[in-house]
Amino acid sequence: MADVWLQSLITATPQEGFELAITLSRRGVKYTQPDTEVLHKLRPEYANSADALTAASQVIAINFQTVAAANDYWRKK
Amino acid sequence: MADVWLQSLITATPQEGFELAITLSRRGVKYTQPDTEVLHKLRPEYANSADALTAASQVIAINFQTVAAANDYWRKK
Amino acid sequence: MADVWLQSLITATPQEGFELAITLSRRGVKYTQPDTEVLHKLRPEYANSADALTAASQVIAINFQTVAAANDYWRKK
Amino acid sequence: MADVWLQSLITATPQEGFELAITLSRRGVKYTQPDTEVLHKLRPEYANSADALTAASQVIAINFQTVAAANDYWRKK
Amino acid sequence: MADVWLQSLITATPQEGFELAITLSRRGVKYTQPDTEVLHKLRPEYANSADALTAASQVIAINFQTVAAANDYWRKK
Amino acid sequence: MADVWLQSLITATPQEGFELAITLSRRGVKYTQPDTEVLHKLRPEYANSADALTAASQVIAINFQTVAAANDYWRKK
Repeated sequence: MADVWLQSLITATPQEGFELAITLSRRGVKYTQPDTEVLHKLRPEYANSADALTAASQVIAINFQTVAAANDYWRKK
Repeated sequence: MADVWLQSLITATPQEGFELAITLSRRGVKYTQPDTEVLHKLRPEYANSADALTAASQVIAINFQTVAAANDYWRKK
Repeated sequence: MADVWLQSLITATPQEGFELAITLSRRGVKYTQPDTEVLHKLRPEYANSADALTAASQVIAINFQTVAAANDYWRKK
Repeated sequence: MADVWLQSLITATPQEGFELAITLSRRGVKYTQPDTEVLHKLRPEYANSADALTAASQVIAINFQTVAAANDYWRKK
Repeated sequence: MADVWLQSLITATPQEGFELAITLSRRGVKYTQPDTEVLHKLRPEYANSADALTAASQVIAINFQTVAAANDYWRKK
Repeated sequence: MADVWLQSLITATPQEGFELAITLSRRGVKYTQPDTEVLHKLRPEYANSADALTAASQVIAINFQTVAAANDYWRKK
């Protein structure tokens, strides 16, 4: 809670928005399992599984919907 | 029902909104399995599984869409 | 069909909205398997599985998006 | 194609909207597997599995989002 | 790329919109596995599995959300 | 980060939008597993599994929702 990691959903570019969506997805994991050592040990489990990578990409896609809407899809660029 | 846990979807910051999304996700579990002892026993099962953590992060992402929309994406910040 | 269980998506508070989302999620199950005895027998299967509880929470989250939008996120509260 | 089964997304009540969401979910299955005999044989497989029933409820929830939006959430009721 | 298969999301009726959602879902598969012979071999695997059919129906439901929104839910019909 | 791969969500046609959705889906995988050799090895695992292809199509469908909304569904075409 003390740690401020999300100040705004607004980003300069869609790519930065996509990267924010990745941060949100990882934070969702980290709030559930805060032990970074455990997370580190789990990494090979999902980074080498096609199903797990697709599932990770899906969470990013859902968070990207939120970030993109927040930025009005960067339409004025 | 007697227990009031959700008074508003409005939060001061996006980070608090994300944390509210986590609360909503946990409440969804708790309404289905109210026995906290059972929930406690299940914790190692999902907190040590990459797939389960990704699934948890996905539920948070879906709830965060709702909270973010409710707050008009904290755009005026 | 004769049984009227959903008259409105409007609720007084966000918490009641969340509880309506739970009702919608359960009704989705019940329309598919109307036999309450079968449903009763399946209960331990999902109420004691972390994955099943996360999946249940996800359906609630999706239905809560609908209910929250219907109520304009209870913004005027 | 010749068979007209979806003339409108507008329904008189939210409950009819929910039932239309069930129809849409079933049609999604039927377009993929049109053989009703096969579908009939598969029924016990999912109607007696908690995971399959939750998955079915999720598809209904997604389709209900569409139907509810189409009906402007039946707000004027 | 040379093959033009998606000129518009606008359809005359909701049913045609649902059928376009099916096309989108299949195209998503085909872009990932363009070899039609492989796809043909995989067909019995999912067309005879209740879980796979529900999953297919879910992708259609997500794409139907997009098509329905594009057509403003065919409200003026 | 140095690599600019997403400059805009705006595309000339819905089909290009669908192809952008595929790019977003693949990038979601690549950010999680940047090692292209590993990704190459995983390819047969998902390209020959009906479940994995449906899951891939689902991520594309979610990203296509975002791209389609960004382009106002290419309605003025």
